Amino acid sequence: MKTLDLVLPDTRYPIHIGQQLLGKVELITSHLKQPRVAIVTNTTVAALYLEPLLRSLEQAGIDCLPVILPDGEDFKTWDTLNQIFDALLSHRCERGTTLIALGGGVIGDMTGFAAACYQRGVPFIQIPTTLLAQVDSSVGGKTAINHPQGKNMIGAFYQPQAVIADMDLLDTLPERELSAGLAEIIKYGLLGDEQFLGWLEQNMSALRKRDKQALAYAVEHSCKMKADIVAQDEKEQGMRALLNLGHTFGHAIEAGLGFGTWLHGEAVGAGMQLAAEASRQLGWLDQAQVARVEAVLKQAGLPTVAPALGTARWIELMGHDKKVEGGEIRFVLLKSLGHAVVAKLPAAILEQTLNSRFVGNIA
Amino acid sequence: MKTLDLVLPDTRYPIHIGQQLLGKVELITSHLKQPRVAIVTNTTVAALYLEPLLRSLEQAGIDCLPVILPDGEDFKTWDTLNQIFDALLSHRCERGTTLIALGGGVIGDMTGFAAACYQRGVPFIQIPTTLLAQVDSSVGGKTAINHPQGKNMIGAFYQPQAVIADMDLLDTLPERELSAGLAEIIKYGLLGDEQFLGWLEQNMSALRKRDKQALAYAVEHSCKMKADIVAQDEKEQGMRALLNLGHTFGHAIEAGLGFGTWLHGEAVGAGMQLAAEASRQLGWLDQAQVARVEAVLKQAGLPTVAPALGTARWIELMGHDKKVEGGEIRFVLLKSLGHAVVAKLPAAILEQTLNSRFVGNIA
Repeated sequence: MKTLDLVLPDTRYPIHIGQQLLGKVELITSHLKQPRVAIVTNTTVAALYLEPLLRSLEQAGIDCLPVILPDGEDFKTWDTLNQIFDALLSHRCERGTTLIALGGGVIGDMTGFAAACYQRGVPFIQIPTTLLAQVDSSVGGKTAINHPQGKNMIGAFYQPQAVIADMDLLDTLPERELSAGLAEIIKYGLLGDEQFLGWLEQNMSALRKRDKQALAYAVEHSCKMKADIVAQDEKEQGMRALLNLGHTFGHAIEAGLGFGTWLHGEAVGAGMQLAAEASRQLGWLDQAQVARVEAVLKQAGLPTVAPALGTARWIELMGHDKKVEGGEIRFVLLKSLGHAVVAKLPAAILEQTLNSRFVGNIA
Repeated sequence: MKTLDLVLPDTRYPIHIGQQLLGKVELITSHLKQPRVAIVTNTTVAALYLEPLLRSLEQAGIDCLPVILPDGEDFKTWDTLNQIFDALLSHRCERGTTLIALGGGVIGDMTGFAAACYQRGVPFIQIPTTLLAQVDSSVGGKTAINHPQGKNMIGAFYQPQAVIADMDLLDTLPERELSAGLAEIIKYGLLGDEQFLGWLEQNMSALRKRDKQALAYAVEHSCKMKADIVAQDEKEQGMRALLNLGHTFGHAIEAGLGFGTWLHGEAVGAGMQLAAEASRQLGWLDQAQVARVEAVLKQAGLPTVAPALGTARWIELMGHDKKVEGGEIRFVLLKSLGHAVVAKLPAAILEQTLNSRFVGNIA
């Protein structure tokens, strides 16, 4: 097991990465204020991992309340969030009760937001069960639910007590979800570390075969990059926005097709391809670099062509992005591979990008 | 105009107290990140004060989006909160858009919570239009909505950019609401300043006649006490809980009768009477002191007898209090007049209190 520390002005917390961590109950119990937790998970994950977690916590004398939600991005709503509040209140959970998020990004985001709001804030611990959640959403304290008019529009910056990333939990992850997680890993290479991008190109087949050592290295490297960025800019006043590479296009894809149609990581994959293409049209990348992005995304099993939503609809959807400033959409673009910046995009270039070969053959 | 400063580890903000402040638009504009605000108010307040505020902001070149909600504590719900989000998203309000809460405690709590959650946090300014909001709820950053199972159960600690308390707005306040505000003012005397309690006894008739100078002094003194306490304990880890004097009983009254039946301040008034009676039964206060509490509450036009909810129902409702720890309800009680403490109450004394002459003649 390796442990990274995320150090923030007001708090710090460990990110544990390794195998057989679900049984190491002290990683959880050392953070509890009272011998009581609520474990928030979904029907899919509960069937696989709830019992072993319950068993080890109960053996340690911890009272556990399981809260089992429906599975999927389309349930990342107020109604589902309220199921958590109902359960916590019905069972009289207190300010000292710790919530545990056992699941992927949706469960982590919702549990974190529930923890931020319940009685104005209770502790929580992230146990991410997808690759995407392990490398990205479980780290850094962004929590949220979706609104019909935009993804992650209602949320909070609220940090967990600890993140426990157990590679063994990835054994049961569907192929498509594994690829979605690889999208966020590729993102770290593209936005800030070309050498890591090279490592990914060389090790992609090991990653897709779920080689535990390769996975652990990729998770650790991604978390380290994220922790460094978040430590410098917790509330996204500046450089944290770089972590949104591919996300302005990606969120529009998710909202445009209906949340849950494409996985978040798939949408981010196609979104990064569009960001690369836009960067090429700005003269920042060349054809070969755009092709390199396309190749690594394909290696990871990700889409590189976004659905044809229609230019007007694209722009409308992207207008809801949280980076919009004074009515202008701001994009994360690539000055070079391994060097992202936040920039505005001239309307003509945006339009050309949305009419490039990277948009269109899927409805 | 007097200005107090609330100084916190991460931020500081001014509390302006005076007359004719609604026209002093620089008190608002000096805090804006972009020339755009959303003014959240309710139907009652909008009819009185929205136009003048809009006029002075628009003259200053500020784009204003009014969001007018239904009036009343029973609307302090997710559904009403979501009306704010719908309006902000439909009008593409951004992270730099400031929300202005123009209203009483319900509007302030909901607008503050909306500001805490919208795009994970946007700035907001409090313009409290009730005495209760001016002396208490607008200061200190507690925001929330109610849940059917408990008051203020879903919320955040989130500080405004400024609080603007204009005494002129109290001219139109209904008598009953004025008394409700006086309850929170009396609270400050009881919990921490016996001399101020004496001042209130002597000046109660001036306050009820809405003498502007007397009101401004009472607001200023209350805000100063609150600011001192919040500065020491923003997140209610300790002494901030003292501000909950009368609130454990009071919240049970509000929830037990249905939110909005009694005003919050009325419930707190009767709740403080019960806290005084419980303190007497513990041997901390004598009969004369309990009678003094009763007299000042009556002077203020407040109820001193709580509704008969039935002991079991009382205890059930109070079990949802945010101060519950390890299943035990903790109360704010009076060691003496002007000296509150947080303490547990032996079951027998709680029961005697709930069967005292301060509970019962109202259904």
